[in-house]
Amino acid sequence: MEIRFDHTTLGQRVLFGAGAAAANIATALRDLGASRPLLVGGGHTAGVVDQVSEEFGVAGHIREVVQHVPAERAREAVALAQDVGADAVVAIGGGSATGLAKIVARDTGLPVVAVPTTFSGSEATDIWGMTEDERKTTGTDLRVLPRVVVYDAELTLGLPPDLAVHSGLNALAHAVDSLWAPRADPINRAMAGEGMRALVPGLRRLRADPEDVGAHEQVLYGTYLSGVALSSAGAGMHHKICHVLGGTFNLPHAPTHAVVLPYVAAYNAEADPESDARIAEALGAPHGAAGLWDLAREVGAPDSLGKIGLTEDDVDLAAELATAAIPESNPAPVSQENVAQLLRSALRGDDVRR
Amino acid sequence: MEIRFDHTTLGQRVLFGAGAAAANIATALRDLGASRPLLVGGGHTAGVVDQVSEEFGVAGHIREVVQHVPAERAREAVALAQDVGADAVVAIGGGSATGLAKIVARDTGLPVVAVPTTFSGSEATDIWGMTEDERKTTGTDLRVLPRVVVYDAELTLGLPPDLAVHSGLNALAHAVDSLWAPRADPINRAMAGEGMRALVPGLRRLRADPEDVGAHEQVLYGTYLSGVALSSAGAGMHHKICHVLGGTFNLPHAPTHAVVLPYVAAYNAEADPESDARIAEALGAPHGAAGLWDLAREVGAPDSLGKIGLTEDDVDLAAELATAAIPESNPAPVSQENVAQLLRSALRGDDVRR
Repeated sequence: MEIRFDHTTLGQRVLFGAGAAAANIATALRDLGASRPLLVGGGHTAGVVDQVSEEFGVAGHIREVVQHVPAERAREAVALAQDVGADAVVAIGGGSATGLAKIVARDTGLPVVAVPTTFSGSEATDIWGMTEDERKTTGTDLRVLPRVVVYDAELTLGLPPDLAVHSGLNALAHAVDSLWAPRADPINRAMAGEGMRALVPGLRRLRADPEDVGAHEQVLYGTYLSGVALSSAGAGMHHKICHVLGGTFNLPHAPTHAVVLPYVAAYNAEADPESDARIAEALGAPHGAAGLWDLAREVGAPDSLGKIGLTEDDVDLAAELATAAIPESNPAPVSQENVAQLLRSALRGDDVRR
Repeated sequence: MEIRFDHTTLGQRVLFGAGAAAANIATALRDLGASRPLLVGGGHTAGVVDQVSEEFGVAGHIREVVQHVPAERAREAVALAQDVGADAVVAIGGGSATGLAKIVARDTGLPVVAVPTTFSGSEATDIWGMTEDERKTTGTDLRVLPRVVVYDAELTLGLPPDLAVHSGLNALAHAVDSLWAPRADPINRAMAGEGMRALVPGLRRLRADPEDVGAHEQVLYGTYLSGVALSSAGAGMHHKICHVLGGTFNLPHAPTHAVVLPYVAAYNAEADPESDARIAEALGAPHGAAGLWDLAREVGAPDSLGKIGLTEDDVDLAAELATAAIPESNPAPVSQENVAQLLRSALRGDDVRR
């Protein structure tokens, strides 16, 4: 089998340790030569914010972050960073906090230290997103890639258990979908495999005991690798479908990913048996889709798109929009009819284990 | 088990494809915005050099490279790069060509495109080395990390079969030794695992048919990941021993690595069963050391340090020098007596399979 690829590894430092967020943020800032950080988010991590504020002359603090990075808020943040002479941005929170910090970095060149409190994985990518007039714009820019990521499992302990599991399944979707994404290659496929092998047992432990710090560590570690894999390989069929369901039909982000993933895995299984075997291996299941379907139910994800707001009337438009966006790299041939069929299965919550 | 680490991923682009070196060098240079490259090496790849020269205004060409990067040659190369106004350095060759290009990058900031023709792995690291008055100086500097690596399996086809295998075993030593190196962490251990899983079957195929392009591809791919793992984790006990044997006793680089590796794996096996299991798994062997010992013999590596120049009289000094350099992270406790015992076993070529 011929090996041929064009892989870009993004340079980044990762400081990982439970209970060490404040110390690691301080290490990160010192090594970046920064002393006047702008803080973004951190609402539920008062202790960490206090410790960072004690050690550094915090230049400013944007406490409230809004989902989907509204352009107006982003412009205010950029202006604030410039006005106060910030020399770094520390984002403590989920995808919204990281997302806002990324726009500041894009427009000012300031380095970002990302301190995730969910399993969004945004900290591992050079992708930014912004919303203006209800339209989302996205792009990639090396400047928005956080220079340092600080992972502290004590910070995700605060997530409500259901949200934690949905967020973790969303991370799993990053790894799975990267396997057949446009720039999939042996390196990012290996990262995805390692990510899945951490996420699957981590999610099971998280469901069994939402306060298990070790489970949070496993899921955070898997989240990082899955984010790296997706960032490197690009988004595949699964993400394109979910973007349409979220963007046009307002379905909730993480639950949508949890429901759709097994159906996409089933769709591609026959055309890409090697990826299916990788997913199956991580899940300890005979087939990838079957394992994902069981896992979603085992950890209590919603079991159909119908239950989270999609209706039969939406299917044709959703299929049309998604089909146009699905990359040509997808292993199984894609047609609007096939995608509509996939969506109807997911709408009903059909059993994919056969 | 607690997860705690400080990992730095080095940003780099890898263009991989057999027969595509010239096209990929051109892509790399264009995307770097470079048009006046300084070429280093390339002696056995006239076709590639010609094609690059046709497309770009080559600013200069250092055809002859010398082992261990003598400081005088390095200074000449830096001066040449500046005099001719080069805007990139393209190194085509083994560790010596890459090594010279790295010094030019260190002193001028020019980006390096590395095109390896051996399995040295130097292209994956930010480590430079230089020799002056018979003393080797080394250091790390982000500027020396090649910005782009171009792998073309047709370029390693030219290696004499024995050299190819020794060079590939040397790459395997990078992966193995990274497992217990000072900065070993889950991420670089995963990279090392993937590297070993590519190198082992690749080396067996290479021995069976030195002209098998697919075998060269597997070994090159494994070489890259093993270099990344070692660069991230640092050098462990194995490399410290081999540096002493090479530096003070002038034993040949690659064969020394091939002989020593199983003895170090045996030394650490009991204290670090997880790493031993990882090595064993990649080799399809019951134990790591046993698998490495068999593999070295199977592919025709020398079977003792005695056969490549070490004598009983050298052992005590070698053990003393190596013991002082072995990192504290080494899983098994290290004493001069233990290291001398290890060296005597390797000197005789004792069977480590028990």
